Amino acid sequence: MTTNLLSMDEAIAACAANGIPWIGAWRHKLDQDVPAIRRRIESAGLKVSSLCRGGMFPAATESERKQRIEENFRAVDEAAELGTEVLVLVNGPAPDRHIDAARQMVMDGIAAVAPYARQRRVKLGIEPLHPMFAGDRSVVVTLGQANTMAEKLNVPEVGVVIDVYHVWWDPNVYAEIQRSAGRILGFHVSDWMVPTSSLLMGRGMMGTGVIELRRLRAEVEAAGYTGPIEVEIFNQEIWNMPARRSLEWMKDAYLEYC
Amino acid sequence: MTTNLLSMDEAIAACAANGIPWIGAWRHKLDQDVPAIRRRIESAGLKVSSLCRGGMFPAATESERKQRIEENFRAVDEAAELGTEVLVLVNGPAPDRHIDAARQMVMDGIAAVAPYARQRRVKLGIEPLHPMFAGDRSVVVTLGQANTMAEKLNVPEVGVVIDVYHVWWDPNVYAEIQRSAGRILGFHVSDWMVPTSSLLMGRGMMGTGVIELRRLRAEVEAAGYTGPIEVEIFNQEIWNMPARRSLEWMKDAYLEYC
Repeated sequence: MTTNLLSMDEAIAACAANGIPWIGAWRHKLDQDVPAIRRRIESAGLKVSSLCRGGMFPAATESERKQRIEENFRAVDEAAELGTEVLVLVNGPAPDRHIDAARQMVMDGIAAVAPYARQRRVKLGIEPLHPMFAGDRSVVVTLGQANTMAEKLNVPEVGVVIDVYHVWWDPNVYAEIQRSAGRILGFHVSDWMVPTSSLLMGRGMMGTGVIELRRLRAEVEAAGYTGPIEVEIFNQEIWNMPARRSLEWMKDAYLEYC
Repeated sequence: MTTNLLSMDEAIAACAANGIPWIGAWRHKLDQDVPAIRRRIESAGLKVSSLCRGGMFPAATESERKQRIEENFRAVDEAAELGTEVLVLVNGPAPDRHIDAARQMVMDGIAAVAPYARQRRVKLGIEPLHPMFAGDRSVVVTLGQANTMAEKLNVPEVGVVIDVYHVWWDPNVYAEIQRSAGRILGFHVSDWMVPTSSLLMGRGMMGTGVIELRRLRAEVEAAGYTGPIEVEIFNQEIWNMPARRSLEWMKDAYLEYC
């Protein structure tokens, strides 16, 4: 997502050329036959850190909710075909003012998808989004909430994804990272710039903002996470850079600040 | 703040003309001798619901932090002179990346101001702001955090202010409102619009967004709050309306949605 203007092929080539061993895939970039993309990723020597995104469960009617769940089956299939173990769930907003009812729809949706995920050997990572997205993207807004959901679902294929941009502000974040131990399925970094110009597109490169990246990474690793770390930056200026330049900056910033 | 383009005098006149019995005052609008403003408010038949804002405690150096505390003494004086019982605290961002250190500075600052507030019979209302303001306005971001701070400070002149815009997304908000019982010093309403165009200026009139206003108000009242309800809307379009029109809309929306 940090190089969103690239096609999948271009992103694969850019990662390979810049010594980046993992690539995070997004469903809207799967512009070709998925097994073919997988072959290209593998022949470039890369692995897929995760597929983003499943989720989006709440909807106004029963039949719409069923459609959303079926869409998640397809996302699980794509994750399996890509060869990644993790499908990231961005769980969606409420269809109306009843946010707690929508939260229950998320629980029901994940419960409905989990058995198929297990069958396909894909794990479902509940990603809490920043509370500023509670109205339009996710009724799951804190790591504590995601942990409670995972505990209640209580199946090995459901875990959490921790993105510093979404959780850094939380007074309970360190306690909740500890509580996530054993079910952390992904760790995403970027930075919170001051001022932040846009709710969606205002993320910064690591080091350009106020997030305590090292402290968060240390806590995530202390909780046992040893998987890849994704750099996920929604920012038009960074997207507009030549990928060689943005990826070089990304690597330097990663080493210096994460 | 909902009629921010009016002077203090114009706002007093507009409230009186529209049958609005309370006015929420902001320090930057105190453009004249405070006792004179108080006399005008009283002769218009109004009361002052609160003065906004004290706080802004975290700073890089000891001497700056002292200055911030002294500024809060002046804010307490102004609240007392205006005849309101409540000074709202917007507690400020961290001066660096150490958000937890800044949170301790807020605790130290409130502890330093509380004895003087007691002497002047002014209460200090800790207002948690939405987590999207954690980087530039407030390291206090949840009602749970504000409750814990008030419990630790444990003095009768420190309580919390609940603004629906800042807390509506929180999975724990109803439990935390119950926990606030006995120390709720203010209740603010507006609405969260979808999409939200601006972090600061994107608030909507009640009814134009997704916040469960009635449910939140019922819980706040069930927790024993009987004070005034402030409508606080940062929105350029509403500011640009003639006050007669915005206040009429506000009254209708308040009756219909709150």
